Amino acid sequence: MIIVGEKINTSLKGVTEAVQARDADFIINLAKYQQEFGAHYIDVNCGTLIDEEEEALPWLVEVVQAAVDLPCCVDSPNPKALATGLKVHRGQALINSITNENQRYSEVLPLVQEYQGKVVALVIDDEHGMPETAQLRIKVGNDLIRRLNADGVENDRIYIDPLVQPISSGADMGVIVLETIMGIAQMNPGIHFMCGMSNVSYGLPKRGLLNATFMALCMMAGLDGAILDPGNKRMMATIYAAEALLNKDRRTKRYLAAFRSGLLDI
Amino acid sequence: MIIVGEKINTSLKGVTEAVQARDADFIINLAKYQQEFGAHYIDVNCGTLIDEEEEALPWLVEVVQAAVDLPCCVDSPNPKALATGLKVHRGQALINSITNENQRYSEVLPLVQEYQGKVVALVIDDEHGMPETAQLRIKVGNDLIRRLNADGVENDRIYIDPLVQPISSGADMGVIVLETIMGIAQMNPGIHFMCGMSNVSYGLPKRGLLNATFMALCMMAGLDGAILDPGNKRMMATIYAAEALLNKDRRTKRYLAAFRSGLLDI
Repeated sequence: MIIVGEKINTSLKGVTEAVQARDADFIINLAKYQQEFGAHYIDVNCGTLIDEEEEALPWLVEVVQAAVDLPCCVDSPNPKALATGLKVHRGQALINSITNENQRYSEVLPLVQEYQGKVVALVIDDEHGMPETAQLRIKVGNDLIRRLNADGVENDRIYIDPLVQPISSGADMGVIVLETIMGIAQMNPGIHFMCGMSNVSYGLPKRGLLNATFMALCMMAGLDGAILDPGNKRMMATIYAAEALLNKDRRTKRYLAAFRSGLLDI
Repeated sequence: MIIVGEKINTSLKGVTEAVQARDADFIINLAKYQQEFGAHYIDVNCGTLIDEEEEALPWLVEVVQAAVDLPCCVDSPNPKALATGLKVHRGQALINSITNENQRYSEVLPLVQEYQGKVVALVIDDEHGMPETAQLRIKVGNDLIRRLNADGVENDRIYIDPLVQPISSGADMGVIVLETIMGIAQMNPGIHFMCGMSNVSYGLPKRGLLNATFMALCMMAGLDGAILDPGNKRMMATIYAAEALLNKDRRTKRYLAAFRSGLLDI
């Protein structure tokens, strides 16, 4: 499971102020904390600071990469901000995100090509927006994968985001995500998946329980990447357990290491 | 999810002494406790008391059914003991268990027919014993279902047990169970599944974490019955969460009721 640490995001408490004040120590602490708990990528997102995003995003990339030896998930809906962030990034970034909307696709694809990045690909297009059924999400996902392939982006660089929405807003929202993952996985060998869990539990109590349980279900469907807080012990313990149970943890090595480090004490 | 409370079993601490002394209060407390936490059946198993099983099992059935208004899961490898237990049982019992071994089948089938019970069916036969691969378990399960159908036992009365074994003894033991459930479900509409989780974690630390995570995975595969301690809060909370996420809990009614009762406080 590829873990993308989600904590450096100006929609989260304290981060906006830190980015506006260019408080590097605050950002460095968040980066180091997420690395310590097993993040493979550090997400950097300052999309709420619209006016200064194009300056703030490269600052974040540089501060994070000076502090930890990890690639970033450069995260913005704004292709110009993505470009400034990617320009200063060292190594292979995860670009978050592309869709099959024609304008967004045509603006983000050149960045994926130029920087040879991995890319999060949302199952959204101009015709369907955010499709309401699993069948349509699978179709939009397959179309987007074929288009990316034709443009030189192979499956191993593509992380499909199946669009997690609250089960409180539609009882089948969880099942739609699971079916989307299974359907796209079956038809596209080597493809990857990535999403956050927390939307699924919006509006319900005990969200941590729902989010961690949904993680296990998504992993069985084929999810192999997640955007989350690596310091969330229940979520991470569930990932270690599910990997062991799904035979994706040779000799339960990572599970036992996590146990010895106290990471399974939930 | 059909919950079978597992606590009245002479292999568990204190139960042997209680059964030998015919201490009804001890048994009644266990039955009431399991009913309170949502059991649909009360398992009664005194298989370790070989010499007196045929007298003790009907005593257990009568004590339990006098105390709680629930059917029993009458549980023994010994058909003669099953017969004495079923003779005094009121309502539709769950008979635990039949296999496709010729002798066991021919001895247990008449009980299933006579008492019109539901039956737990283990994927075991004379040729393969406990089959080592999912493919063979699916074959043995399908054969057993067809044989039961031909003998008048319809799918809705059959709970297939896919045989949970420790991942510490074979890394693919979890995956084999999941594939067995999915394979048999696909080919046998209306069939049910039932098993215990705890074997999967034998030999590893933090067994409760593994068992609850495996429950979520098995539910996604199609498991709709489980033998467990209904007072195990983590396990039950995971079941409530997974049912909500898999759209098997209309308007998240049971999840919210469990929340209000404090059952999700883990």
